[in-house]
Amino acid sequence: MSSNSFGKKLVMTTFGESHGEMIGAILDGVPSGLKIDRELISYRLSLRKGGRNSFVTPRNEDDEIEIISGLKDEIATGAPLAFIIKNKNIKKRDYQDLVGKFRPGHAHYTYLKKYGLFEESGGGRASARETAMRVACGAVAEMILREVGIQSISFVSKIKDVVIDSCDDFFKTLFCEPTLITDKSLFIPDEEKNARAENILDGLIKQGDSLGGRITFCAQFLPVGLGDPVYEKISANLAKAMMSIPAVRGFELGNGEDLSEIHGSQFNDEMTLDGFSSNHSAGILGGITNGELLYGHVHFKPTSSIRKKQKTLNAEGKEVELEMKKGRHDPCVAIRGSVVVKAMLDLTLADALLINMSTRLDDLKKKYERII
Amino acid sequence: MSSNSFGKKLVMTTFGESHGEMIGAILDGVPSGLKIDRELISYRLSLRKGGRNSFVTPRNEDDEIEIISGLKDEIATGAPLAFIIKNKNIKKRDYQDLVGKFRPGHAHYTYLKKYGLFEESGGGRASARETAMRVACGAVAEMILREVGIQSISFVSKIKDVVIDSCDDFFKTLFCEPTLITDKSLFIPDEEKNARAENILDGLIKQGDSLGGRITFCAQFLPVGLGDPVYEKISANLAKAMMSIPAVRGFELGNGEDLSEIHGSQFNDEMTLDGFSSNHSAGILGGITNGELLYGHVHFKPTSSIRKKQKTLNAEGKEVELEMKKGRHDPCVAIRGSVVVKAMLDLTLADALLINMSTRLDDLKKKYERII
Amino acid sequence: MSSNSFGKKLVMTTFGESHGEMIGAILDGVPSGLKIDRELISYRLSLRKGGRNSFVTPRNEDDEIEIISGLKDEIATGAPLAFIIKNKNIKKRDYQDLVGKFRPGHAHYTYLKKYGLFEESGGGRASARETAMRVACGAVAEMILREVGIQSISFVSKIKDVVIDSCDDFFKTLFCEPTLITDKSLFIPDEEKNARAENILDGLIKQGDSLGGRITFCAQFLPVGLGDPVYEKISANLAKAMMSIPAVRGFELGNGEDLSEIHGSQFNDEMTLDGFSSNHSAGILGGITNGELLYGHVHFKPTSSIRKKQKTLNAEGKEVELEMKKGRHDPCVAIRGSVVVKAMLDLTLADALLINMSTRLDDLKKKYERII
Amino acid sequence: MSSNSFGKKLVMTTFGESHGEMIGAILDGVPSGLKIDRELISYRLSLRKGGRNSFVTPRNEDDEIEIISGLKDEIATGAPLAFIIKNKNIKKRDYQDLVGKFRPGHAHYTYLKKYGLFEESGGGRASARETAMRVACGAVAEMILREVGIQSISFVSKIKDVVIDSCDDFFKTLFCEPTLITDKSLFIPDEEKNARAENILDGLIKQGDSLGGRITFCAQFLPVGLGDPVYEKISANLAKAMMSIPAVRGFELGNGEDLSEIHGSQFNDEMTLDGFSSNHSAGILGGITNGELLYGHVHFKPTSSIRKKQKTLNAEGKEVELEMKKGRHDPCVAIRGSVVVKAMLDLTLADALLINMSTRLDDLKKKYERII
Repeated sequence: MSSNSFGKKLVMTTFGESHGEMIGAILDGVPSGLKIDRELISYRLSLRKGGRNSFVTPRNEDDEIEIISGLKDEIATGAPLAFIIKNKNIKKRDYQDLVGKFRPGHAHYTYLKKYGLFEESGGGRASARETAMRVACGAVAEMILREVGIQSISFVSKIKDVVIDSCDDFFKTLFCEPTLITDKSLFIPDEEKNARAENILDGLIKQGDSLGGRITFCAQFLPVGLGDPVYEKISANLAKAMMSIPAVRGFELGNGEDLSEIHGSQFNDEMTLDGFSSNHSAGILGGITNGELLYGHVHFKPTSSIRKKQKTLNAEGKEVELEMKKGRHDPCVAIRGSVVVKAMLDLTLADALLINMSTRLDDLKKKYERII
Repeated sequence: MSSNSFGKKLVMTTFGESHGEMIGAILDGVPSGLKIDRELISYRLSLRKGGRNSFVTPRNEDDEIEIISGLKDEIATGAPLAFIIKNKNIKKRDYQDLVGKFRPGHAHYTYLKKYGLFEESGGGRASARETAMRVACGAVAEMILREVGIQSISFVSKIKDVVIDSCDDFFKTLFCEPTLITDKSLFIPDEEKNARAENILDGLIKQGDSLGGRITFCAQFLPVGLGDPVYEKISANLAKAMMSIPAVRGFELGNGEDLSEIHGSQFNDEMTLDGFSSNHSAGILGGITNGELLYGHVHFKPTSSIRKKQKTLNAEGKEVELEMKKGRHDPCVAIRGSVVVKAMLDLTLADALLINMSTRLDDLKKKYERII
Repeated sequence: MSSNSFGKKLVMTTFGESHGEMIGAILDGVPSGLKIDRELISYRLSLRKGGRNSFVTPRNEDDEIEIISGLKDEIATGAPLAFIIKNKNIKKRDYQDLVGKFRPGHAHYTYLKKYGLFEESGGGRASARETAMRVACGAVAEMILREVGIQSISFVSKIKDVVIDSCDDFFKTLFCEPTLITDKSLFIPDEEKNARAENILDGLIKQGDSLGGRITFCAQFLPVGLGDPVYEKISANLAKAMMSIPAVRGFELGNGEDLSEIHGSQFNDEMTLDGFSSNHSAGILGGITNGELLYGHVHFKPTSSIRKKQKTLNAEGKEVELEMKKGRHDPCVAIRGSVVVKAMLDLTLADALLINMSTRLDDLKKKYERII
Repeated sequence: MSSNSFGKKLVMTTFGESHGEMIGAILDGVPSGLKIDRELISYRLSLRKGGRNSFVTPRNEDDEIEIISGLKDEIATGAPLAFIIKNKNIKKRDYQDLVGKFRPGHAHYTYLKKYGLFEESGGGRASARETAMRVACGAVAEMILREVGIQSISFVSKIKDVVIDSCDDFFKTLFCEPTLITDKSLFIPDEEKNARAENILDGLIKQGDSLGGRITFCAQFLPVGLGDPVYEKISANLAKAMMSIPAVRGFELGNGEDLSEIHGSQFNDEMTLDGFSSNHSAGILGGITNGELLYGHVHFKPTSSIRKKQKTLNAEGKEVELEMKKGRHDPCVAIRGSVVVKAMLDLTLADALLINMSTRLDDLKKKYERII
């Protein structure tokens, strides 16, 4: 019941505050024998990092990861992996305007009421800084999935009227060439649309405002049979995973059509000798993977920290004005958030993979042969 | 890691198949001293029942609940409550057309591949029949919430172009008069709109087709401080709870606006001496309740079981046609689903309430006084 | 965190009071495809039953088990198995002497203080009646273990000066012929010693007193590698399993020598080409099975319910005398307890077997082949 | 299901190998507002440390603890506490004799078979070094207990024929003056007996051999009502906690008498107006604390690492001799183990305390008042 842990068999536990000495994570349950690919971890972290361009927070952390346990010659031993990243680029001064004032839309208020005290500088645990550890652990999950051929992607699919529709063929293109996503400033896998969204954000930054956004995620080559009835549907676990990301307010499987307007005869995927003739189910039937592309959307609200002047209360209950002149925030958290979405997707899938090992008596017996 | 259990401190575990002898549940963690209100359980079950009118499945089960443990003179003793409902209205014959054929959009395919065998009659565990037990346990959760003044509602808010918008004032009207919801055939709390939706469904039933739908839920008088950072946000647990309901494909906090089009300066809820000046946060900041109305939407796909002819495969891998002439299905599962949404909401809130008892040292000490 | 659940992947949850309508259990996580052997369940229950002879409680329940979910043609489907046994032989009258008086050594006092109310008749949840469900679920665990060749036994090994020493050869004899245990009235696998212990108990019964006892358990043909470091050592889980049985006060691995008197050079098991040259480790090194016989002891205190007159308080805090003239209790709970010890052993081993399926990347890949 | 985590609401997760860069732990669930007493942590660590005298391992680690998250001005914020200790005194060379040889009685064999690889130097995760983190977290648990007045002690109570009997009055003396334990070289709270045991160990060290030992633990001022039926008895959780300590092979509640020789009429604790007239129940009835002294024993086997020559196999399966000339091991792990026993006792009690906050509806309502 640790509230800072995620997963059942592949268990990530994170610690550390935004402006503390370091942040870290323990990843327990990594199968022994897995080769740890440090470059993949660093690469994923680099995508999440601030300071990459003018559309993300200028807080530019090295995010140099140290792995301090669980390895022998870069191979996982079955012991818990522990990661730390030292916080270097801390500017406590920038937060001085905020001290003692509740930031509208921010967790400061609820944390203070719940715990009786709050580390305001940098947002403490309520900061998105924590998600760096999700990305590091997600990269290890990705290595596990890679061993059995599973792949995943995520990208920004909607900012205002800039929209990328879900489509199986387009997903497949992206799986072949994921740099179509990652070489874009905003992770919108379309040159022209990315440019249009850049314009929108440029205007927004000038106004000191922020914007929400929609992320699309997709995984391919999943086996049939991941996920469990009734309360451990893989779709339910995915929803929880995504909703645990700061600023996420919505989750949907499939391509985002309005389900209240669709008929069963349109939505059902008929089966033929060539397989399913459509994929409205988005890869999940009854909470269990059916082997098709698994895809859906994650909705981020606009960043709560904006430069515009806002009315609020201070901790003494007096009305005050808040103007965050400095602080370093993302105009649209969904952009970096898309990297975290992939991490949570990979962690959820790898966990399901490790859990689903003894569903059938056949498997139990086959496995037992090795064990003796 | 039981996949048939829900909750951490208030733990519901369900069992039983749609066409088995009985279905049942164990509810563990009910605080001792709680008066069990059997009428409330029966009432909630009656709302979920089939056969209530022509818009829900004609399978009309008595749903007579038996409580077989955990009570002394109708007071919870702290021991697990166990419930059973005997299945009476089983018509295995009606499912004979289906035998050996995969129903499009149904879990039959994934269950068979995962487990190697499947009880086709009635859908086994993959049937919505299981949700009767959620409703029974949800009613007990409701009793716990009632003791501390928390209330909740849920209703059908969208079927095709029939829409009920989210609005704090309207929610408050419904809290005062919940029969505005429950006396409607489709749980649409508006006479005229309910009638319009009836027309839509009437047409649909004639065509042998089905439809999806949107449910709105809301809770009031929540304390500040329910839910835990980071992975146990109450919003994340709510999302998982809802996504575990059969046919649910999407979850969103708040009033359903497109977040990718909204500015932070519009979305942030400013604070004044009169409290929050708006409630875009829908009662949750950083995954923790802020004391405002908690509300959101749950999206149901159209019922997969339709009478229209569909192409599919049989278990031997041959192409066949499927026509479900009999079987008893809902034209729109969202209607009865709305009752399950409230149950899962109440279970999630009551669980959070019981978990959030020792967050502060102060509380620990206060409680300790009683314990000695 | 259900306190009425046991196990992580093979999860047993029990419910029901000693003098309620029925007792029951849900067993979740049984691998699909397992043939359920109802006779084995009935046989194990018959060994635990009262009324078998004059040395156990005269409460003679049929213990007719009903399996109400999870099966298709007697094969486990992967859905939760649910069991119920109706209570028939209830004599509430016999407990009337007790009403309102704390029975010395009994949980009545702590339950009342903890929960504020207590079902005195039959001891409610604190009664050994609950263990019938452990035995039923344990029999299913035994079926799982049987599929991979693992066997276990338990027997009474000490009552006063009647002692059976632990010895690998003797264990092996018992594995070949378990009826050497079960055909004895007291489950002491030695004709003469069993008779001697009968005499001791006969005297005890006349005095209206009770006695403790020691149980020895042993499992063979375990694979190397069950159990997990650090906190999930199989020995730690076994200890918890055994200590959860009513009246158990001690647990030890190995043959019960006084460890504070032994040298490492004596205790260490040397290894030769023929394997380990001794088995002081009792089959466990570092909390993980090493493939040798796993064995140890469980210590039961004397039954708290005796017929002898005792001083106590009543619920109003007045001093009273307690004389249980009727009530039906075991002179030595360890005897029937030995059957429960085997059940908890089998449940713990089967759970470990199901958990230990994805420790190595090799296994994950091998399993994945089937899953796709 | 992290196997490196302990506890349900107060959750400790440890990481790091004996000869890695550092070891560490995350402690989640510490109530906000708790003042962290760094001196207490250091003091408890100093008692567990090697190099304290000639009777413990000469590996003398500073064990300088760093707390890297979860605090604001030395007050717990409700966020996870993270601890690290850098390993300084590593002598990998000393383990060169061992490379590729299975140490008799050591987990090397089972780890290698289970995981396919093993970090031999220092024993990796299977080393007692991990227990430093239990002691650090245990000290935080002790701070929580201290806030509500609960105290605990542990000491060495048996080495060969040197025995300290359990006795309530003696326990109370030790609670008043715990230095009677800690100022002794072997933590035997009796000058003369400690000296006698020193002599025994002196002889043993000369022979290059090791010895087991018995630890007694005791806690006082516990409330009535800690622990839960049926599977979460506090006694069951204590047993698991203790059996998770390296080298522990047995656990018993109470004063260690042979239960198979005792009558119920002797063992039952009668109740009078002055309270329980004896304490055979050792503070626990039905798995729930009754407010009396909670006490029992933990049995350690002799250290497996000895200097004496032993026969064994190497990883290639050849017979070899093993002689550990260097390596730094304890002649009797029970001595330093006694410090770990107290830590695990405190962690188990504090966890139970935090869990037992919403057992009664009354408590829920009282707590709710604060929360709103």
